[in-house]
Amino acid sequence: METNGLKLSTKWQGDFVFEAAGQGGHKLRMDAHQGVGNDQGLLPMQALLGSLAGCVGMDVVMILRAKMKELRSIEIITEGDKRQNPPKEFLAIMVIFIVEGDIDREKVWHAIEVSGEKYCPVAHSLKADVTYKLVLNGEEAGAK
Amino acid sequence: METNGLKLSTKWQGDFVFEAAGQGGHKLRMDAHQGVGNDQGLLPMQALLGSLAGCVGMDVVMILRAKMKELRSIEIITEGDKRQNPPKEFLAIMVIFIVEGDIDREKVWHAIEVSGEKYCPVAHSLKADVTYKLVLNGEEAGAK
Repeated sequence: METNGLKLSTKWQGDFVFEAAGQGGHKLRMDAHQGVGNDQGLLPMQALLGSLAGCVGMDVVMILRAKMKELRSIEIITEGDKRQNPPKEFLAIMVIFIVEGDIDREKVWHAIEVSGEKYCPVAHSLKADVTYKLVLNGEEAGAK
Repeated sequence: METNGLKLSTKWQGDFVFEAAGQGGHKLRMDAHQGVGNDQGLLPMQALLGSLAGCVGMDVVMILRAKMKELRSIEIITEGDKRQNPPKEFLAIMVIFIVEGDIDREKVWHAIEVSGEKYCPVAHSLKADVTYKLVLNGEEAGAK
């Protein structure tokens, strides 16, 4: 099977703070949870939820790009349920798209479905069961 | 089974840029790959690699905390092999710890092993086969 590589460097900043640096010098700063860390960055598990949101979000914008001007706002809430005991991994993740814009419900929901089923590499890299929900202009408009 | 929740909000910034905001207002800014995005942030798949590095890095520092002053530097290279066709998910990830310090090889390697096997929630949330390697003071000092 043919594969493609992707590489990243992450450096320790003292205490429990780590900073990853990617293309163009963009940074991801992380710290441990309260009581251990000092609130100097995202929790690694939050960064994981953010990577999932960015991934499905970009797919949706890409699939809807001809209608991009009709989209006023997109907020993506990613909510993960973790196992309570170590290793406390994600067992299930809900991705809630809150979209505002003059755009058909079917088009947006289709874009979310296609990303989740076929395209989003982050979603397909996770063991957790990932489910999706759409709230369009304040109304629930799809769930899966 | 008892679980614990974790939640994050990620907002669209126009084009293919998304920004996740977590505890204390810390941000993760992401953009699509070259040719689509405009290098305004990390790729979501890079952010995923970063979350893995931060997770195992914090575990290792925690396990070695009594020896923290003997650690001069830690760099973690995370290298992922992705499936070449959609959904292009990670199939295998190599985590390379490059550590400098006056510390026993066995102690550092044990900390990496314990994190990988038992504790790191990000590593255990991934489908990919995650392997580890340690380079201590310039010498290869463990691989698994």
